[in-house]
Amino acid sequence: MSVNVEFHFDFGSPNAYLAHRVIPEIEARTGECFRYVPVLLGGVFKATNNASPMVTLKGVKNKPDYARIEMERFVSRHELAEVYRFNPHFPVNTLQIMRGAVAMQRRDSDVYARYVRVVYDAMWCSPAKMDDPDVILEVLTAGDLPADEIVAAMQDPKVKSQLIANTEESVARGVFGSPSFFVGDELYFGKDKLRDVEEEIEAQKRGTG
Amino acid sequence: MSVNVEFHFDFGSPNAYLAHRVIPEIEARTGECFRYVPVLLGGVFKATNNASPMVTLKGVKNKPDYARIEMERFVSRHELAEVYRFNPHFPVNTLQIMRGAVAMQRRDSDVYARYVRVVYDAMWCSPAKMDDPDVILEVLTAGDLPADEIVAAMQDPKVKSQLIANTEESVARGVFGSPSFFVGDELYFGKDKLRDVEEEIEAQKRGTG
Repeated sequence: MSVNVEFHFDFGSPNAYLAHRVIPEIEARTGECFRYVPVLLGGVFKATNNASPMVTLKGVKNKPDYARIEMERFVSRHELAEVYRFNPHFPVNTLQIMRGAVAMQRRDSDVYARYVRVVYDAMWCSPAKMDDPDVILEVLTAGDLPADEIVAAMQDPKVKSQLIANTEESVARGVFGSPSFFVGDELYFGKDKLRDVEEEIEAQKRGTG
Repeated sequence: MSVNVEFHFDFGSPNAYLAHRVIPEIEARTGECFRYVPVLLGGVFKATNNASPMVTLKGVKNKPDYARIEMERFVSRHELAEVYRFNPHFPVNTLQIMRGAVAMQRRDSDVYARYVRVVYDAMWCSPAKMDDPDVILEVLTAGDLPADEIVAAMQDPKVKSQLIANTEESVARGVFGSPSFFVGDELYFGKDKLRDVEEEIEAQKRGTG
């Protein structure tokens, strides 16, 4: 029995990137592929009146330190220290690169997968200023992607409206932040829920979810 | 190798109650006892400029629904439906019953354990209005506890200052909300971190934590 598993992502969230790095392990163990759904986190926040931890934790003592500790624990547990660098340009406006994701998803699954990998690495491994058009062009070209086509598609009204539609549908299904996962209709929020996601995939495969 | 495991609790947090209900399973599996440290959650919030989810999630869409779903998942996973009822008097001012916890902890570990069990059940299983002095007296008496002694101790300056000291020390060690756990010096926040708590206990027992 195949299970629909979705990862609603915005390149701008470091926690979503760390989840992205662990997803292949879960895919290998469960035999189920995660479908990557591009959404605009800023749009999610606006629609839900939510905000990023950088905003909600401003002026709060201890909690930001704990969030950092939990990030370090996750990085250590999954041996991601070599592939994660906090982006010095954070927060990066991800509108253009998220539109690029929508365009590549519409085009072809192989090029979409490569686009996601290349842009995620540029955001959180290199890391680069991925709201600068010149940097975007350079990264896509270096990543063997059809850079000119992608940059042009970022201005395509169909692509723009698809990203908005994805975001609205995501919120309609209960999403309020990033990273978010669906296993069937079950929503899970946060990289720390990946164990629950994996258990729910296995449960739904057995028909007991 | 024995491990110091602490549960920093306030009777007022339903998530801490749910954790309290699962702790015995972890104690049985690991062979390590959780030391219950009474703190005043209101004091933690004041010292850290943090607030309860009821406050921080006010006006936010989807996120409160998700918190409810995660609570239901936890209750279901640990088969707690029979022993958990949301307290209709929430939020309950827990100052007096937390002082009672401090007093009983100073007295004797058996009576302290019984006090915690009786008061937690009165808060989240019965549930009763546990900031009403008459209700407190009644619950303690029915629970075979030295009710008059406890109520008197709630006004003892040593007890009052011990609760403040516990709370300050908890914040100094990184606590910002409830439930919080320490395994050695490692802080874990939230009932969903109990699996990590258990793994860290086992790691520290092996000397690899």
